Amino acid sequence: MSRPLGEFELIAAIRDRIARAGAPASVDGLLLGSGDDAAISTREGVSVTSVDALVEGVHFRMPPFEPRSVGHKALAAALSDLAAMGAQGREAYVQLGVREGISDAQLLDLADGLGGLAAAHRIAVAGGDVTRAPALLLAVTAIGHARGPEAVVRRSGARAGDLLAVTGALGGAAAGLVLLERPELGAGLEQPVAAALRRRQLEPEPLLAAGLALAGAGATAMIDLSDGLGGDAGHLAAASSVTVRIEAERIPVQPGVAAVAEAARMEAIDLAAGGGEDYELLATLPPERLAEASSAVAACGLELTVIGSVETGAGVELSGASSAARPTLGFDQLRPRPPGRC
Amino acid sequence: MSRPLGEFELIAAIRDRIARAGAPASVDGLLLGSGDDAAISTREGVSVTSVDALVEGVHFRMPPFEPRSVGHKALAAALSDLAAMGAQGREAYVQLGVREGISDAQLLDLADGLGGLAAAHRIAVAGGDVTRAPALLLAVTAIGHARGPEAVVRRSGARAGDLLAVTGALGGAAAGLVLLERPELGAGLEQPVAAALRRRQLEPEPLLAAGLALAGAGATAMIDLSDGLGGDAGHLAAASSVTVRIEAERIPVQPGVAAVAEAARMEAIDLAAGGGEDYELLATLPPERLAEASSAVAACGLELTVIGSVETGAGVELSGASSAARPTLGFDQLRPRPPGRC
Repeated sequence: MSRPLGEFELIAAIRDRIARAGAPASVDGLLLGSGDDAAISTREGVSVTSVDALVEGVHFRMPPFEPRSVGHKALAAALSDLAAMGAQGREAYVQLGVREGISDAQLLDLADGLGGLAAAHRIAVAGGDVTRAPALLLAVTAIGHARGPEAVVRRSGARAGDLLAVTGALGGAAAGLVLLERPELGAGLEQPVAAALRRRQLEPEPLLAAGLALAGAGATAMIDLSDGLGGDAGHLAAASSVTVRIEAERIPVQPGVAAVAEAARMEAIDLAAGGGEDYELLATLPPERLAEASSAVAACGLELTVIGSVETGAGVELSGASSAARPTLGFDQLRPRPPGRC
Repeated sequence: MSRPLGEFELIAAIRDRIARAGAPASVDGLLLGSGDDAAISTREGVSVTSVDALVEGVHFRMPPFEPRSVGHKALAAALSDLAAMGAQGREAYVQLGVREGISDAQLLDLADGLGGLAAAHRIAVAGGDVTRAPALLLAVTAIGHARGPEAVVRRSGARAGDLLAVTGALGGAAAGLVLLERPELGAGLEQPVAAALRRRQLEPEPLLAAGLALAGAGATAMIDLSDGLGGDAGHLAAASSVTVRIEAERIPVQPGVAAVAEAARMEAIDLAAGGGEDYELLATLPPERLAEASSAVAACGLELTVIGSVETGAGVELSGASSAARPTLGFDQLRPRPPGRC
């Protein structure tokens, strides 16, 4: 199938659509955005840079995904990494791979989804690249900003005695995918509950404000939950050379997840701790900062829940969960998918 | 085919191989490289950011490409954009998509090629991401540095009366691909000539030093030749709102290109002006700066050749070429390949 728009016309149309979605043409310090060989910016403080990619057939399928959600989710995943550093989002660079059979209208819908999220978080889409590819794919580089090196929260700062806390509620993205693939399993759910689960899978929100709030309230280490609570806690534990102990019964589970798990004959803990893609933030902090952190996160409209603690040692210990849940605690990009993962 | 190494083991092995190839673990101002949610850096002056992707089946095939060359070329293409801004390379972020059938050893060879080029140009590979994909693919974000906004050369600064000049010689990448696909067409070539053509296609060099030299010697506009001379001159003309006039007979052609063209029953001008991927630099500059620019580029081991001029108007005018050459002057990433393009 040939494409009506050539490469450069398509790029122009995508840029136009992103602008119409309200994404800023520039942000403070961005001297030149897309259209040249490279973008130019001045950056005070420190820059924080992360990359993430969504590949059709690996991270999503269409349907149930629409191009709009693909654009939104690819940017959200990259921005979520900035949130986990306590950085403010600033610029995004987008590499789009287009397969046969994708129409220009679909690509503009994708740009719309990406541009809408960029608008909401005041991110300038400062550069990009379009190429043919055997699958629809989006690789996003997100660049953020922090006041100084001390304002950035790494994975490696957790100390024995810290509390382990998570924003929001988990399992929604995995349960949402189950519902998207098998809508009949949602028959017993109220519509808004089911819609929230699907939205969590399709168009997750990067928690940039909550990340800043936690950084300001003394978080010692932080990571976003993209691979799943167990796996991501393991990354944090390894980087900090500590044991992370998680009490399974304290994990906040999104409404409707238990019902979906039951209908699908799965364990809710598998979806909440192993599903991943919720893009909530997992942080460690000294007990004396908990009240401040909870207030700061509440000001972002989110709850902060203590789900465990940090101890000397290594690895993750999950107490109170069925042993069956443990093998699915982490997500490996190169292995077959665990339950609830595309 | 399953992969012996999981995602995180593979990432660790790739990081190790890049380091062993000599790539710096850090560069000045890089506070945290790969391994966290994001990299952290302080950047004085201005940052220059570009993205580029190589996709198997679109930009290369294996064979004739080996994974080592894929790693080299993907980084080279992204760095070449920085060269075209007159920026110094600094950091690279790499997103690797791995298809079934690619072995871990091949991925480490790819890392070796990428790391070797990073070592040669003192680029820190500061972050990355690995995922499954339906084809081998590498998306690279390169971040460079310039003293200040005035030190960066955009596409938009060409003025009527400027000269148009190009570094090195053209057509080698396209002729090299012809030889890789049809080795018998190189029977009449001396081995070093043929090897240089193949190398130009497989492992092009980003001309960072020449880009800096041209920026310092008064280049008013610059672009790297990735899409082909005609197409890239068109981008420069459009950005600068001028006519770019190219005298076909003055285009420097790499040794062996004419012989390959003749053997393949093609026009040498098609390979030199339409083939692309030579990653030479096309610059405009005031006539009074030509001698200085030529000396500065010569100090990098390259020749600078005047191939035309800038006039009021719009578009590209190619004089002296057969009209048959003109339809292949530019490369569109979304259309079927022109002669000599993968």
